Formats: sequence, C-alpha cells, structure tokens
Amino acid sequence: MPAIRQVGMPNALYAKASKCPMMKNALKGQSAGISTSSKCPYASTVDSIVEVGKPGTLSSFLSKNPSELNNALFNQHQKNGVFDYETFYHQELEKKKNDRSYRYFNNINRLAKLYPTAHTGTGEHVTVWCSNDYLGMSKHPEVIEAMKETLDKYGAGAGGTRNIAGNAQLHLTLERELADLHKKEAALVFSSCFVANDATISTLASKLPGCVIFSDSSNHASMIQGIRNSRAKKHIFRHNDVAHLESLLQQYDINTPKLIAYESVYSMCGSLGPIKEITALAKKYNAITFCDEVHAVGMYGKTGAGVAEYVEAMAGIDIITGTLGKAFGVVGGYIAGSAAFVDMIRSYAPGFIFTTSLPPVVVSGALTSIRHLKKSQVERSGQQLNTRALKATLQSKGIPVVPNPSHIVPVMVGDAETAKSISDELLYKYKIYVQSINYPTVNVGEERLRITPTPGHHEAHMQHLVGALETIWEERGLKYVEDWAKAGSPLGIGSTHVDQLVRSADLVNPNQTVAATA
Amino acid sequence: MPAIRQVGMPNALYAKASKCPMMKNALKGQSAGISTSSKCPYASTVDSIVEVGKPGTLSSFLSKNPSELNNALFNQHQKNGVFDYETFYHQELEKKKNDRSYRYFNNINRLAKLYPTAHTGTGEHVTVWCSNDYLGMSKHPEVIEAMKETLDKYGAGAGGTRNIAGNAQLHLTLERELADLHKKEAALVFSSCFVANDATISTLASKLPGCVIFSDSSNHASMIQGIRNSRAKKHIFRHNDVAHLESLLQQYDINTPKLIAYESVYSMCGSLGPIKEITALAKKYNAITFCDEVHAVGMYGKTGAGVAEYVEAMAGIDIITGTLGKAFGVVGGYIAGSAAFVDMIRSYAPGFIFTTSLPPVVVSGALTSIRHLKKSQVERSGQQLNTRALKATLQSKGIPVVPNPSHIVPVMVGDAETAKSISDELLYKYKIYVQSINYPTVNVGEERLRITPTPGHHEAHMQHLVGALETIWEERGLKYVEDWAKAGSPLGIGSTHVDQLVRSADLVNPNQTVAATA
Repeated sequence: MPAIRQVGMPNALYAKASKCPMMKNALKGQSAGISTSSKCPYASTVDSIVEVGKPGTLSSFLSKNPSELNNALFNQHQKNGVFDYETFYHQELEKKKNDRSYRYFNNINRLAKLYPTAHTGTGEHVTVWCSNDYLGMSKHPEVIEAMKETLDKYGAGAGGTRNIAGNAQLHLTLERELADLHKKEAALVFSSCFVANDATISTLASKLPGCVIFSDSSNHASMIQGIRNSRAKKHIFRHNDVAHLESLLQQYDINTPKLIAYESVYSMCGSLGPIKEITALAKKYNAITFCDEVHAVGMYGKTGAGVAEYVEAMAGIDIITGTLGKAFGVVGGYIAGSAAFVDMIRSYAPGFIFTTSLPPVVVSGALTSIRHLKKSQVERSGQQLNTRALKATLQSKGIPVVPNPSHIVPVMVGDAETAKSISDELLYKYKIYVQSINYPTVNVGEERLRITPTPGHHEAHMQHLVGALETIWEERGLKYVEDWAKAGSPLGIGSTHVDQLVRSADLVNPNQTVAATA
Repeated sequence: MPAIRQVGMPNALYAKASKCPMMKNALKGQSAGISTSSKCPYASTVDSIVEVGKPGTLSSFLSKNPSELNNALFNQHQKNGVFDYETFYHQELEKKKNDRSYRYFNNINRLAKLYPTAHTGTGEHVTVWCSNDYLGMSKHPEVIEAMKETLDKYGAGAGGTRNIAGNAQLHLTLERELADLHKKEAALVFSSCFVANDATISTLASKLPGCVIFSDSSNHASMIQGIRNSRAKKHIFRHNDVAHLESLLQQYDINTPKLIAYESVYSMCGSLGPIKEITALAKKYNAITFCDEVHAVGMYGKTGAGVAEYVEAMAGIDIITGTLGKAFGVVGGYIAGSAAFVDMIRSYAPGFIFTTSLPPVVVSGALTSIRHLKKSQVERSGQQLNTRALKATLQSKGIPVVPNPSHIVPVMVGDAETAKSISDELLYKYKIYVQSINYPTVNVGEERLRITPTPGHHEAHMQHLVGALETIWEERGLKYVEDWAKAGSPLGIGSTHVDQLVRSADLVNPNQTVAATA
C-alpha cells in the first residue's frame, strides 16, 4: 500500500496505524471527518483542523496531495491494459484546457533601444505594458556597459558553485552592497528570489525546533513552496489582517519559535503589507519576520531599499528578500539579515549550496543597477508619476482598477477566457502587450489585466492604452466600477478583501500613488 | 503540541493519533522501535522500515526532520529566559565548525583572456584546476560576442516570467535547439538544473497516481530534494547496482507508475550510470527514466548531447536533464522529453511558472555555445586527452585517483581538515586552485580534491600540479594507492563501491578516458 504512506508519516508510524481500525480509516480518508471505530477504547470526537486549499486558488494549485493507489484512476490512463504515461500527461493538459487555465506564451522581444517597445515573433512592434522591468534598468547604458566589460574580463559563466570555483569578488561585493542597502549585517545571493524564498524558509523553518509559520494568504508561490517543503506547522492569516494574525500568534507559548512571512508589495493586487504592525506583533510574541520586498526593491525609499525604507521600518524586519530581476533589471534573488542568520542559510540551504553561482556578468549588471538607483530618484519619480496619471485616467473612465497604493495597476475582468481575449485583441489590434493573468497566479474568478507603467511610457502611449481599453470595455459590454459595486462585489473581489488592499493607505496616499522621494 | 504534527501527518490524523496510547507513543518516537501499549486490541509486531539517512552522508544532510517541541532544546537557545534566534543560529554554525564541515569560500576570479588563470582577492594569479567550465566555453569569443550583441539589442534582463513579458524568441529557439540536441520532441529551460531537477521530479512524482521513485544512492542533492518534496514513496538503490534496482522494481505491480532517477556522470566520483541496462529495466517493469546529464552535456557524443549519445542510448531515456552552466559555460538548466510531458511540467511546475525567465543575454550565450559544440570536436578531444594524461601521470606516482571512466579526476584524501589544508597549501604556496570537497557534497571520510582538466591546461600546468601533489603527499606522509589497499579500503571508498565506479568500463575505456569523438 505505497500510496497511503505518502501522507508524509514515517513508515513505521504508518505500519502501526495500518493495524488500527480507527487510524486505518483515517489514513484512507486523510481527514478527520471519517466515522471512528466503536471498538477502540480511545476514540473520541476530534475537531477537524485540516487545511485544504480552496479550489481555484494558488494554495490549491501548490498542494502536494499525491493521489492514492487507485485502480479506477489507473484505468483512465491505460493503453493495452497497462498504465500509460503519455495518456496521463495528455489528460493533465486537457484539464487545464478545459478550465481555461492552459497558458499560451506570447513571443515578446523587448528592444533595449526602443524601450518600452518590443517586437513579436512576426517582427511587429508593440508597446509593452506589463513588464516587471519597472524602471527600465535592463536597458540602462551604465548597466549594459558594465556587463560588456565584465564579459570581456571574466567571461560568460561562473563555472562552479560558490564553494567550488564560483565565488568571485563581484559576488562578495554585491552581497555587501545589498546588506548595506537594507541596513543589515549580511546578504546572500541566489539563482532567483523564488529559490531564495523557497530555500530560506524551508531551511530555517525545518531547523528551528518546533517552528510555527504564520503566512499571509496572498503570499507568493515561492514562499508557499518554502513553507510546504519545510514540513513545519503553518497558519494562514487573512490578507493584511493583523488582528487575525495576532489571534493565531496568541495560541503559542512565548518560547515556541515563530516565523511571520509576508510581502511589502503584493504583486497581483498592489496592496502593501503592514510592516510596522507586523513588526510590533513579532516583538510582542517573540516571532521573527520574513518580508519579501521583491516588487519594492529599487522602487521605494530614498535609496531604493523598498517599502520598509520608505516607511522607516527596515530595522525591525529580521529577514528581507529581494530580486535582481525586476526593478534592478537583471536576474537573481537574495536575502538580507543578521550575519549569523545569513551564514546559517549559506551553510545549510541545499538550493544555495548545490547550484552554479550567478555569472559575474549578471552580478556586475545588478551591482551597477543597485548603485545607480541608490543615488538616482529620476526613475522612481517618473514611474510614480506615470502610475498616478494612469490610475487617475482609468478611474475617470470607470474602468475597474483594483484600488491600491502601489505601482501596480490591476484591471479586473473576472473571467479567464475574456481576459485572454482582451489581451489578444490589445496585442493584435492595438499593438499593446498586456498579459492576462489567470489561475493559478490569481484565483479563479479574479482574472485580470495587470498593467505596470514605467518611466518610459509617455503621454502618447498612455492615451493609446486608455483609448483601447475604453473601446474594448464599451464594445464588449464589460463591467465598470459601478457594475461590480451593484453586483455586491466591489471590483470583482470581496469587499473585505478590498479593505485589506487599501488599509495601508496611511502609509502611502492611494490616490497619488507613492510620492516621488526626490 | 505543534511540533509533533511536523512528522507530516495531516492535522486531523494527528489529532486522532494523539488519543491513542499506541500511536501517541509512536508519534513521540517517530519510529517503530517503541514498546506498544498492551491495552490496544490491535497492537502487534510491525517490521521497522524507517529510512534514515546515515550520518555524514548527503542523504542525512538533506533530511527534513523538524525537531520536536522540546524544552531541553529550547533551554539551550534561551537568553533572558526566552527562545533566542541569534543564539540558535550561532549554535548551528558551531556544529559545522566542530565537525570541520564549515565552509570558507575562496575568492576566485577566472580571467577570460588568461584561461585557466584566475586572480584571487589579493590580485595574485593562480591556475584553476577545479572549475566546471570544463571546455572553457565561458571565454569563447563566439559566446562573448553573441552575448554582447544581445545585450545591445535586448538589454540585461528578461523583465518577467515566461508567461508575463519574459518569453522571447531566443528562449523558444534555445528550447528547440536543446530538444534537437537530445532528439526529443521538446525541451524546457529553468533558472538552473537544480531547479529543473527539483521542480520536475517533485511535480511529476506528486501528480502520477501512486508513483514510486527509484533513486541511485549517489544522486545529486537537487534530485534528492525533488524526491523529498514530491512526498512520493521512494527506494534508494545502491550506486549503479542494476540487480538491486531490479529487486526493488519487482515488488510493484506493472500498473504502478514508477520513476527511475539517475545520472549519466556522477560528479564527485566520475562513475557513469548504466544507461542501457536501466532503460531495459524500465521497459520491463513499465517505469519511466529520468537521467541527469548535467556533467556530460557538451562533453560526450558526436554533437555533445552527453553519455547517452556516446553509447547510442538516447532514444530509450524518457527525461533528460542538463545544465547550461558547466561545459556550455553560461548558466541555467533544462529538461528534454516528449512534447506532452514537457508541456505538463511547463503547465504545473511552480519552480518554472513563478520565476523571472533567464535573461536573453544568457540564453544567447548558451545557444551559441551549444551550437558550437554540436559541430566542433576540438574542445572535447582536448579535454579528454588532458584528462587521460593527468590520470596516467598521477597513477604512475601512486597518488590515489578514484578510478572512473569520465573526465573527473577525484584524488582521495579521506579527512576534512587535511583536504582543506592541502587545498590551502596548493593555493598559497603553489598558486594552484583545487577546492577540497567535504561533507555534505561527499560523505564524511571520503573528502577529496576534485580535479577537472580542461583543454586549456597545457603540459607546464600539468607538471606543476603533479609536482606539487607529489611533494605534498611525501611531506605530509599521505596515503598512496597501496596504503589504501592495505587498509582494506581501496582508494578510501568501499571495494563494492569501486566496483560500481568502474563497472561501466565497457562503455568507455577507463584507462584512456573517453576517446575523442573526432
């Protein structure tokens, strides 16, 4: 009975449990809802606290629920009476096509010299309105020049892991620069921030004795994966709901190690995490905080360290993670924290240890970009002014922008097929590229267009975009802000949720977006 | 009692189990060795089949065994009566320092124009003898030139995930090139091959209903992590032991989905996986095979597709994974397989979906390198001739090289401190950089120097290296081949193990290394 062991129990426990009629039943159902055997002297009612990802959410997508060994299932995938792998793959793909979550990648080639223009697979020029190269740093002459020089000097690749031939002065310099940016003792660079989050959380929470994780319900897939892979106990608190978080923290002894994981900017709705309140709770309950600043680094604060710098709350965060691949314009991820913490992750995290390090050329580009954005406010200001202008214009037309105080402009559609069809029409008819965002990146029913203005989008770009959306909304009879409100679901997401999105409005004026920090 | 739930049981099961005196005891011990309660009518003797990683092995390092909620443990980490995170980090680091596995990274800056020379942190020039840039492609003028052109045209970073603004023609072209290289229908590129292995195995094995994984005991950390994260049942077969593998496969119904995971070249001992035999077993038992060619791509076969191409066994492998960061000289990883399989991973693997794609500049460098090595035999031949020469010379001096038929030259030391000390002496006294390899990369007691000759190492380099090793071996009274033999442990590793290392000698002549394929 190999499948049943997959619930994650040690085999010996499984063997014991399989001898017990009560546990045996429970094992089969993997839930507490199953009737218990009256033969057992110890059986009693038990509250069900099984956490199951709601269908259509990221959490359900990331669930590892290996199917049971089930003949009925096998029969579906058989060919000539034997389990057939190809049939299985095809059926898994059919599922995605049937629920409209199958993804067709657009062929987009962003042209450095014509930013924010790209050419498509057929060579046509389109304006990109959804890149995470928020500040256009990927085409910045200083960055390009630094990378060319490094290519000439140190070549294309690092040639090894950090431990074996792949640790250069550039890596050490970048890590010092990042530590300084976040005013932490140390930093550590990873292949990506997906890897940084996954490796750090899974290593930390599996090592801290009896660690309990408290995770915001809108956290990114990389954090959810790290939490699952740690096998630590977790609680999910409602998005940005510090009262809910506190009610969960209260349940534990002061001596139980606790990790609160959240983001400073939530990528798909643009809300900001309540950094100061979470820091205060962490202090009160002896927890440590893990704040993902991926969408904020380079974008906020006087030196581009993120929202925590902007709201002057950096010192209270224990662990900050960021990316080199969005506002900094290159690729890679990192963590910053105390020297001992970073050294422990460096020493124990498989995702850091056993992989080729970032090429010096990548490191050099990222370093140049970070240093530039530490001093220059021009890119941030331009981005913020353009975001403010676009949000205001869309709002004046009644186009449903999910309200938020950040640089993200999510336009709610609410249906996968429509969102994709709008994205296609924008691309082919209007030469505008805005990717439709579908499940699992957002929940089913909350499909949207996610627009990201940059300092490179001029007045003409914006007029063209707004005009196209106006026409499409009218021609297709799509829901405006007031229609969503009438339907009792403001902007396509529950009203409670909207409250949580704008609750951080005291930090940054939601109508003006983030003020320029110059 | 949060910690106990961390054995991986669903909470509801835990709640049930905690009501039962038998299960409660078993839960505490997490093993079957605990005495059972005589009160339970169902208690009976159960065979213990708990798999625990042997201490000092990679498997034990990668174990996720969250500690129990244990006051004694907390007390160790307390400060002013409260659990203190910093104290915990320091103590975890102390453990590594105490067992000599704490790592000090060397500062190595490989100079493209003086390959295989690097400068250290102080600017001194040293010869690098341990890089995985096996063929020097990271400094190849065609690669550098292609990358510079791409930087000018497409900038520094991709600016998004593959689904959102980060999918360019270059990515699609690279994937077609990789599919063609391995003669598979499709390929998919990831941030690294660590991510490719982890994401692919964990996604595939958690989706295939009741999947059982069969994993070579010497598999890389990335595969072990993917296996663990899949939560699927696994069996570990003795390194390269196909009889052992078959005995495990036999236990399962033909209809049980099975995945055999192995490597074509094992990085730390240089042995080759028995591709044809494993393929035959897979066919017999209706399993699929996952072959990691990370250390072989670019290196073997007429077009550099790896060992499978060299031994004409490529078609039989279901899933091939490789890296763009070793012989191809850049960074990144990939999988290749059937179109439906690759599309399923593309559609379901979080580690692929939720991360910024590789920068076009990286893709362009890798593409150029792959295309070059598809046609050119010069680099492979040069590497193989140099490996043959170095192995022969070291063998003639009695220096203990772990016998193997590949391009890896592992020199056995057998002790962490000595290995590090030799590495330091080579670096500071002889200006030779060979990293010592310690736990967890190799097992405790099997610490070694791992030497990787390249086509750029000339006669003078080799004489200098061999001379230095001869002197060090003599001055320090280190064990020669005959000493290891007398100690009953040929070359520091069990004799059975040695058999498994050279058992693939029928594929490639172990004395001559791999013959040039020109």
